[in-house]
Amino acid sequence: MNDNSSHFKPIILTGDRPTGALHLGHYVGSIQNRLKFQDEYDTCFYMVADVQALTDNADDPQKVRDNVIEVVLDNLAVGVDPTKTHFFIQSMVPEIAELTVFFMNLVTVQQLSHNPTIKTEALQKGYFLQNKFLTADGGEEKNIGHGIPLGFLAYPVSQAADILICKANIVPVGEDQMPVLEQANDIVKKFNATYGREVFPMIKGIVGSTPRLVGTDGSSKASKTLGNTIMLSDSPEEIERKVMSMYTDPNRLKKTDEGQIEGNVVFTYLDIFGTDKKKIEDFKRRYIAGGDDAPGDIEIKKYLIEELRKLLDPIRARREEYAKDIPAIEKILREGNAVARKYAQATMQEVREVMKINYKF
Amino acid sequence: MNDNSSHFKPIILTGDRPTGALHLGHYVGSIQNRLKFQDEYDTCFYMVADVQALTDNADDPQKVRDNVIEVVLDNLAVGVDPTKTHFFIQSMVPEIAELTVFFMNLVTVQQLSHNPTIKTEALQKGYFLQNKFLTADGGEEKNIGHGIPLGFLAYPVSQAADILICKANIVPVGEDQMPVLEQANDIVKKFNATYGREVFPMIKGIVGSTPRLVGTDGSSKASKTLGNTIMLSDSPEEIERKVMSMYTDPNRLKKTDEGQIEGNVVFTYLDIFGTDKKKIEDFKRRYIAGGDDAPGDIEIKKYLIEELRKLLDPIRARREEYAKDIPAIEKILREGNAVARKYAQATMQEVREVMKINYKF
Repeated sequence: MNDNSSHFKPIILTGDRPTGALHLGHYVGSIQNRLKFQDEYDTCFYMVADVQALTDNADDPQKVRDNVIEVVLDNLAVGVDPTKTHFFIQSMVPEIAELTVFFMNLVTVQQLSHNPTIKTEALQKGYFLQNKFLTADGGEEKNIGHGIPLGFLAYPVSQAADILICKANIVPVGEDQMPVLEQANDIVKKFNATYGREVFPMIKGIVGSTPRLVGTDGSSKASKTLGNTIMLSDSPEEIERKVMSMYTDPNRLKKTDEGQIEGNVVFTYLDIFGTDKKKIEDFKRRYIAGGDDAPGDIEIKKYLIEELRKLLDPIRARREEYAKDIPAIEKILREGNAVARKYAQATMQEVREVMKINYKF
Repeated sequence: MNDNSSHFKPIILTGDRPTGALHLGHYVGSIQNRLKFQDEYDTCFYMVADVQALTDNADDPQKVRDNVIEVVLDNLAVGVDPTKTHFFIQSMVPEIAELTVFFMNLVTVQQLSHNPTIKTEALQKGYFLQNKFLTADGGEEKNIGHGIPLGFLAYPVSQAADILICKANIVPVGEDQMPVLEQANDIVKKFNATYGREVFPMIKGIVGSTPRLVGTDGSSKASKTLGNTIMLSDSPEEIERKVMSMYTDPNRLKKTDEGQIEGNVVFTYLDIFGTDKKKIEDFKRRYIAGGDDAPGDIEIKKYLIEELRKLLDPIRARREEYAKDIPAIEKILREGNAVARKYAQATMQEVREVMKINYKF
């Protein structure tokens, strides 16, 4: 599975930033693969990326703190199994920070500022308000709105350390994170070449069945910030409200008009989440044809609500069950932290050896 | 002594990169203050900055490793007293890396790239070969020779963590490092304000009696790389050779010509290292006047050699004495590492508390 599968055993690492509840985009983007891989492979880690969350929430640590348990609950609710997957908290494995600092010497500022993920996210955050955001001589720089926090620019390096501290080599990710994994692999090559030993494995990123789920409003990406997504913890009423307000075919003014499937969010979601493929095909045929036999938007939406509830009701129920016993969640994290640190310390011992900083004093 | 001297006790931190032996520029730039402060203050740390040395020596870790003991020997030789100053190794205090990663969120890429020290050093290292070294849109960037390692750009942040992990607030430094300390103080203000508690003290940088020693060749700075400096470990023969080749007054062709004192390196060094001020004044007077009574360059140089040997011979002798017992040096470092970690752990406990990552699991 890897370039160097020879001596590295498969180790899976996945994780979320504790900045808010998970939604359907996460589910089809990476969670489905988490569930699949924990059955297929012996060693799986799930990391709560609190340090990464702080890179752009440094001034709101309480938000990050509050979401640590929430995001673990979300994952337990979807079926990530603590007997198969080690849950740990990024900040509780300080070796990650050490490895980050060492990796920072193997990456240039230029590489990072040209990374497509960094560029896209920086634009979203309003960091680039002018063409230029850095000059060497200071003479020609234009005034910019927000400076880029160094921690933000460095997050691909930090993410490489997250993955490699456990020597993980299979990472279920959203499509938008693939360039960050490429940066991590660049670090792997550079580290192994610089220190003359294959300390780290190459990483394979695995994108989910639906790399990018459209928003309920038809915009290209479902995101909590845009408010166009269905959360895994949404109540039946919220699911109903969100589906009922979904974007369909704006040109279909009457039920009997010929309808369009492409770009019709309800059908897009049905293709992904609907279980009765025959029924969906029948809906589509009649929707396109129009006429008296055509289904109303409400009829189709009601079917989507039904299908989403089939998926989400058990998740919500499991979430409520787990939420009753927070000390049990804390125990899962305590045990996971200990396992992750054991891996991390073994990795750092090797890193210190090849970097010749394995002092005995 | 500090903006907030109210509740922070004075703690001194100083250190060197283990990349080579120390020279006279270090002596008058910061070492004299190390010696003075260890007698004046209760808590003094000396850090071997191996992680910082690796930021631009990542591909030559053996060089860094070899110089760890050397740089400690240099400091013991000049009189830094291990019973008064805790010697520790940067990489042996992993809390520094943790604090660095947290501080990285409080500094912008722009601030660092405009820091005068970073700009000067980057130019020296050949990182900026064009006006622009970074663009946001990728469209207008010019081809540049060497990319800037992220670890290099981030070193002022890392240095802030070095100092603040022990809550040091008095730092004897070379003049060229003052902008890096200003950056550290900016981080102190930002951290304390963001997390609503005065966790860190403001840092006071103290520049030595001679902030910038000219090179033996008359160039503005003595530096090992430029080969124009006298090392603390130089043998009497090396001292003699270097002083004899020192830059004097290029327009004084004969001993009887009127001579120039300004820009005359021998007199500059005599002003700094000469102990018999009356004799030096007499030399100067006769040198300027010219005529039969004027001193020859060799006569003055011989006096400088004598004075430098008075300073350096005992340093070299102490160095040789210490070098006989390397296990004793290792013991000094082992004990110092333990003290530094105790301070570091106490600081990180407070940091984790205000950052709300002090999980009990």
